[in-house]
Amino acid sequence: MSLSMKPLADRVIIAPAAAEEKTKSGIIIPDTAKEKPQRGEVVAVGAGKVADSGTLIQPQVKVGDQVLYGKYAGTEITIDGTDYLIMKESDIFAVL
Amino acid sequence: MSLSMKPLADRVIIAPAAAEEKTKSGIIIPDTAKEKPQRGEVVAVGAGKVADSGTLIQPQVKVGDQVLYGKYAGTEITIDGTDYLIMKESDIFAVL
Amino acid sequence: MSLSMKPLADRVIIAPAAAEEKTKSGIIIPDTAKEKPQRGEVVAVGAGKVADSGTLIQPQVKVGDQVLYGKYAGTEITIDGTDYLIMKESDIFAVL
Amino acid sequence: MSLSMKPLADRVIIAPAAAEEKTKSGIIIPDTAKEKPQRGEVVAVGAGKVADSGTLIQPQVKVGDQVLYGKYAGTEITIDGTDYLIMKESDIFAVL
Amino acid sequence: MSLSMKPLADRVIIAPAAAEEKTKSGIIIPDTAKEKPQRGEVVAVGAGKVADSGTLIQPQVKVGDQVLYGKYAGTEITIDGTDYLIMKESDIFAVL
Amino acid sequence: MSLSMKPLADRVIIAPAAAEEKTKSGIIIPDTAKEKPQRGEVVAVGAGKVADSGTLIQPQVKVGDQVLYGKYAGTEITIDGTDYLIMKESDIFAVL
Amino acid sequence: MSLSMKPLADRVIIAPAAAEEKTKSGIIIPDTAKEKPQRGEVVAVGAGKVADSGTLIQPQVKVGDQVLYGKYAGTEITIDGTDYLIMKESDIFAVL
Repeated sequence: MSLSMKPLADRVIIAPAAAEEKTKSGIIIPDTAKEKPQRGEVVAVGAGKVADSGTLIQPQVKVGDQVLYGKYAGTEITIDGTDYLIMKESDIFAVL
Repeated sequence: MSLSMKPLADRVIIAPAAAEEKTKSGIIIPDTAKEKPQRGEVVAVGAGKVADSGTLIQPQVKVGDQVLYGKYAGTEITIDGTDYLIMKESDIFAVL
Repeated sequence: MSLSMKPLADRVIIAPAAAEEKTKSGIIIPDTAKEKPQRGEVVAVGAGKVADSGTLIQPQVKVGDQVLYGKYAGTEITIDGTDYLIMKESDIFAVL
Repeated sequence: MSLSMKPLADRVIIAPAAAEEKTKSGIIIPDTAKEKPQRGEVVAVGAGKVADSGTLIQPQVKVGDQVLYGKYAGTEITIDGTDYLIMKESDIFAVL
Repeated sequence: MSLSMKPLADRVIIAPAAAEEKTKSGIIIPDTAKEKPQRGEVVAVGAGKVADSGTLIQPQVKVGDQVLYGKYAGTEITIDGTDYLIMKESDIFAVL
Repeated sequence: MSLSMKPLADRVIIAPAAAEEKTKSGIIIPDTAKEKPQRGEVVAVGAGKVADSGTLIQPQVKVGDQVLYGKYAGTEITIDGTDYLIMKESDIFAVL
Repeated sequence: MSLSMKPLADRVIIAPAAAEEKTKSGIIIPDTAKEKPQRGEVVAVGAGKVADSGTLIQPQVKVGDQVLYGKYAGTEITIDGTDYLIMKESDIFAVL
């Protein structure tokens, strides 16, 4: 899955995994007070952040990556009836 | 559409999309507690931010780009009867 | 219009536009909760900010520029009966 | 023990030591108001953080290291029935 | 007027102008909620701030300069019966 | 005295001096509202902090140094029945 | 007067001037709401702060300097019956 929309700088767009798919993948989020990560697929990646030194810092994730991210990370958008999240790459914890 | 006004540094001026146009484009903003992005067209772009290193960091958006930005981003201005928003490029989420 | 006073570093001195002049220029500030920009003319510009790298970052505005700035930006001073504002260049939104 | 999941940047995944194992290892956490460190084993390490200068800062811990970390550090995840913590390397105090 | 005391780094010592002298100079501070600048003469200047890069950032003011500064800037000291203010150069708005 | 545990980055492990030893050494902490320093011996030192520039900043203390540190600095750990503190080198005030 | 204790990084140790000596030196601290500086003699100086760039930033004060510093600066220590203050060099305002 990909997307024509291009995030700016170090932002990525993620298609969150559906609730049932999450159980199948073996990831169970324990019921504690800790922040609970969410799972999704990267569908668009920005060109990277330009550091103060002028260096372009390349993103480490790519389209198609399955990722874990914080529950409250990002901003919701809906394109052609599908829900996405747009967030900074630094809000992503890990690539599955 | 362009504009004679020149934003400073890493600021851009955006003409927000009218409400009906937003529905046609297929972007529907869900009714949740999350911050809701807005859509508009870039009508003026600053020369870029000069980093501490003295490097000019070029803007990544250009006049004519359709962009998504945070609902509370920017400052409203009205020029010759038209409403615009002036904001930092980092307040823009993505180019459509 | 110019001014013998020399702002330090990245500061500029601005002669705010009179209220009636603002209406003629076609800039009408909508009556919302958003921060409302003000208009004025640059009458003095500092030599620029020296970055941590030792680089002098040149100001992007010059004496005579018509500029927009935030309503609460700067400090008021009165010289020979005329009111001015002294503010950092980063408080200026755009050059008209 | 290793893990197929790849943390991003300067994050690491840790398998927390079981409560009884902690007593055997001779580490007893005194009952004071001070923050109490926890012990665990590193099971996955990110590629490192890219600094503003563009330099990749290599992680100092490796898979298999027994580490001490702050009690409230990290985010809980459960993979195939096992509990892990994902945290920044800077949340780790020491390697045993 | 000069002073044997040597401020450290980017600090300067200022002899505040007496109240009557302020009126003569034509600077009248309007009675608003805005921060009101004060006027004085620089009597001692530090060697400059050493930036993180190791660069010495030279001060832009010199002994004898008439300057404007924020009303609440600096720390009061009294030497041989005369009141002075010691402040960072960045607290100075402009040289008259 | 040394310790097999290796602190990460710019952290050090300290064996706090016993209360009676503190009086013998001639250091008496006055009974004021000021933060009171504590004394101890460095038993383990991290490899140093890697700065944003990629430079390894070497620790300035070494194993065996008698040091003063802030009363509330660090995290308590107990290894084989002995109490230690693990803290950042920047929490250490001085070497005796 | 000197001291065997070696402050770390950009810290200095100061022997505060006695209250009567302060009056003799002609420095009278006015009774206002402003922060009141204190006077003392530098008795030990750290090797300097290592900046992020890896550069050692040399201290600008030396043992024997009479200095002014903020009233609430530093941490009190007592060595062999004498009271000292240990503070960062940046807490020192000026060398007399």
